[in-house]
Amino acid sequence: MKAAILAVGSELLGTVRLDTNSLAITEAFERHGVELRRKAVVGDSEEDLAAELAGLLSGHQLIVLTGGLGPTSDDITRTAVARALGRGIEIREELVGAIAARFHQMGLEMPAVNRRQAEVIDGATVLTNARGTAPGLRLDAGPTTLFLFPGVPWELDGMIGEYLLPWLAEHLDGDLRETAVLKVACLPESTLEERIAPAYGEFGREAITVLARPGDIEVRASAGGPEAERRERLGAMTRRLDALIGRAVYAHRDTTLEEVVGELLRRAGVTLVTAESCTGGLVAERLTRVPGSSDYFLGAAVTYSNELKMALLGVSPALLGAHGAVSEEVAAAMALGARERLGADYALALTGVAGPGGGTEEKPVGTVHIALASPEGITSHRRLGYPGDRQRIRWLSSQVALEMLRRHLLSTLGTESPGAGTLGEGAPA
Amino acid sequence: MKAAILAVGSELLGTVRLDTNSLAITEAFERHGVELRRKAVVGDSEEDLAAELAGLLSGHQLIVLTGGLGPTSDDITRTAVARALGRGIEIREELVGAIAARFHQMGLEMPAVNRRQAEVIDGATVLTNARGTAPGLRLDAGPTTLFLFPGVPWELDGMIGEYLLPWLAEHLDGDLRETAVLKVACLPESTLEERIAPAYGEFGREAITVLARPGDIEVRASAGGPEAERRERLGAMTRRLDALIGRAVYAHRDTTLEEVVGELLRRAGVTLVTAESCTGGLVAERLTRVPGSSDYFLGAAVTYSNELKMALLGVSPALLGAHGAVSEEVAAAMALGARERLGADYALALTGVAGPGGGTEEKPVGTVHIALASPEGITSHRRLGYPGDRQRIRWLSSQVALEMLRRHLLSTLGTESPGAGTLGEGAPA
Repeated sequence: MKAAILAVGSELLGTVRLDTNSLAITEAFERHGVELRRKAVVGDSEEDLAAELAGLLSGHQLIVLTGGLGPTSDDITRTAVARALGRGIEIREELVGAIAARFHQMGLEMPAVNRRQAEVIDGATVLTNARGTAPGLRLDAGPTTLFLFPGVPWELDGMIGEYLLPWLAEHLDGDLRETAVLKVACLPESTLEERIAPAYGEFGREAITVLARPGDIEVRASAGGPEAERRERLGAMTRRLDALIGRAVYAHRDTTLEEVVGELLRRAGVTLVTAESCTGGLVAERLTRVPGSSDYFLGAAVTYSNELKMALLGVSPALLGAHGAVSEEVAAAMALGARERLGADYALALTGVAGPGGGTEEKPVGTVHIALASPEGITSHRRLGYPGDRQRIRWLSSQVALEMLRRHLLSTLGTESPGAGTLGEGAPA
Repeated sequence: MKAAILAVGSELLGTVRLDTNSLAITEAFERHGVELRRKAVVGDSEEDLAAELAGLLSGHQLIVLTGGLGPTSDDITRTAVARALGRGIEIREELVGAIAARFHQMGLEMPAVNRRQAEVIDGATVLTNARGTAPGLRLDAGPTTLFLFPGVPWELDGMIGEYLLPWLAEHLDGDLRETAVLKVACLPESTLEERIAPAYGEFGREAITVLARPGDIEVRASAGGPEAERRERLGAMTRRLDALIGRAVYAHRDTTLEEVVGELLRRAGVTLVTAESCTGGLVAERLTRVPGSSDYFLGAAVTYSNELKMALLGVSPALLGAHGAVSEEVAAAMALGARERLGADYALALTGVAGPGGGTEEKPVGTVHIALASPEGITSHRRLGYPGDRQRIRWLSSQVALEMLRRHLLSTLGTESPGAGTLGEGAPA
C-alpha cells in the first residue's frame, strides 16, 4: 500500500516550525508495512491544498491529512478536500450539539465560529475526537482512502490510536512490521558501521537502520511477516547485533543512558555524587531527569572556580599549582573529595576545557579528564580529546562519564549487559 | 515570486529524521519576500521525483531541491530533473578533474562512482561547492528557475550564501524583508497575546509572529519595502511592542536568558552561585553553556538529599523538620548558605517537587520555591505552581530563577532593559 502525508498550515511554511506530526503517522505506517512515498506541507490556501490533493489521488491508496480542521476561516482542509473530490459539504446539527456540549463541560458557551467544525463532506465517516473539538473524517475516493486528522499533536496521537491503527490492522491482514532497538554509547558511528557490516550482509541492508547522535547511537532492526517468523527474525538480529557491537550496547529499548545507569545504581543499592567543572552540572542534571533518582543520587558539587575545588572538594592548592585544574591528578582528587565529603559510594568527577577559549598547546579545547571514585579508590580514568563546539564537548564528556560508571557497575554486579543474552567482547569506546 | 522546496531522500521519510534544510532556505526566501507555497519530501525514486517536479513546475517561479546529488545509485536528483524537463545529461570531464582534485587534497584517490557527480543537465549552470564534492546546478525552465543543492546542511548553508541569496537580490530588486526579534521571559502566551493585541491592529496581523516555548517567547516583527522606510517601520514596531510587553522583554536579538543574565553579571562586576535541589543542576548547567561564564559564575551545590542541604549549605535540621525541604524558609536558608559558604555576591536557590511522585495535598507536584540572596540578604522569593511534567517544571523553574536575577540586576544597574529605549511598566511574570 502506497501512502502520502499532507500537513496543512501556513505556520509550517515559516522559518521555525516543522511538520513533526508526520513522524507519528510514519511510525504507524511502518508497523503495518505501509510504504510512505511522499510527504508535503501546504499553507492555508484552499486552492493550493485542492491542487496538491488532486496530484496525490492517483498513485496513493492512503492519504493522511493533518491540520486545518479548526473553526476559523484559515481552516480550509474540509472545504479543500470536498473541492478536490467534487463533493458537497454540510453542517451536521448533531455534531454541533456534541461540540457545544464539550464547551459546556468546560463551563463555556460555544463560540458561533465553532459550528464550522461540524461540516461533513458527503460520504465521509465522522471520527469523534476525544481530546479536542475538531472531529476527524475518513472517506473513500475510488481506490484511495483519506483520513482528515487535527494538527494538535496530542489530539492527533489519540486519533492515530483510535482510528488509523485499527484501520491499518483491518486492511493489511495482520502483516505487521516490528522494530527492535539497540542503544549504543560512546562508539564512533564509523566504528559501529564497521562492526555491524556482517549483519547487513546476513539480514539485508534495508532491515537495519543506524541513527547516530553524538556519543549515542540507535540501531533499529525491523522485520515483517507472520508473527512467529517475525519474532524469531527480530530475536536473531538482536542477538547478532549484540555480539557484533559488544558491551557498548546499553539498552534494548528506547531509553537514555542516565536511566540505565540509575537502574544499575538502584540494583546495586549504592549512591552517587558528581563533582563537575567543565560540564557545569550537566551530569547531575541528566541523572536527575529520571523520576525517583533521589533514591541513588545525592547531589553534586559544581566547582567552576579553583577556589570551590579547594573549598568544597578539598583539592589541594599544591596539586592545582603543579598540574593545573585540567589534569588527571585533579580529576582524581575531585572524585575522591566528592565521595568523601558528599558521602556517597561512588563519585564521578570531570574537569576540562570546553572552549571556545582557554585552550593551550598542551591542553587544547576538548581536553577533558574524567575520574570515577569507588569504595576501592580511583576505579578508572579517561582523558578525552574530542573536537567540536562547547555544547558537544560537554555532552560527550557527560556521556563518557555515565558510560564509565555503567561499565563499572556491570562488572560489579556480574552482569554483562542490562538485557542481552550472550554478548561478544566489545572494545572500550 | 512563488516558490517551492523539495527535499530528496528516503531517510527523510522514516520515523526519525525531518527535512530541516527547508528552514534555512525559507529564511533566505523571507528576507527577499519570496512566497513559499509548499514544501515536499520524496524518496530516492527517479519516477516519484520527476512526477513531483512536473506538478510543481506550473505555478512556481522558483524551486529549490536539496539532496540526492551524491555519487551512488540512490542519488537520483540530477537524472530525475533531466527527465522531468525532457533534457539530456552528460558528464563534464573538467568537473571530474575538480572532484578528483578535492580527493587528492585529502590524500585520497577519487572512487570511480564519484564521476557521476560531474553529470550536468543540458543548459544548466554549474555551482561549485566549496564545502563538498557534489556541485550544485541552476537551470531555467520557461518561467521557472530551479536550484539543485546538496543535502548536507553545512554544504547547503554555503550554497545558499554563495548562490541563492545573490540570485534573489539580483532578481528581486533589493525588495528586502527584515525581521526584528524580541525575546520575552516567563509570560504566559495568552497574557502576551492580550498585551500585544493593539500592535496587531496598528501594524497588521501578518507583520507580527509569536513563537511560544515554555517560559520563553519569541516575538518576530517583519517589514518590507525600501530600506529607510523598512527600518523606520521596524523601529516603530519594536518600540511599540516593548511598551506593550514591558520589562519581560529580555533581549532584542536571538539569544538566551542565561546569556543576558551573564552579561548583566559581568557589567555589574559581581559573582553568582546556585543551590539546587529539584532542578538538579539545570540552572548551573544553563549558566555555564555561555562561553566565558567562569568570569562571573563560581559554581553550585546540587543538594538533592537533605543531608547535603545541611552539610554543604548549613541548612539547619530544625528548619527542615519544621517546614519541610520544599518551603520558602528552606529556599531562603539554601540561598544564604550558598552565598556565604561558596563565597559569591549572589546566590539563587531552588527547592521543589518536580514529580511525577512526591506530591502532597499541601505541596502538589509543581510546587517550587526560589530564593535570591544578595549582599543585602534575601532579595526576592517566588513560589511556583506550574502544571506539567518533570522536565517542564524543572525548565520553568530555571527560567523563573534566571528572570528573578535579571530583574534584580537591572534595577541594581539602574537600567530598565538590556537594549530597549523607553519601556512601559510590565507586570511581573
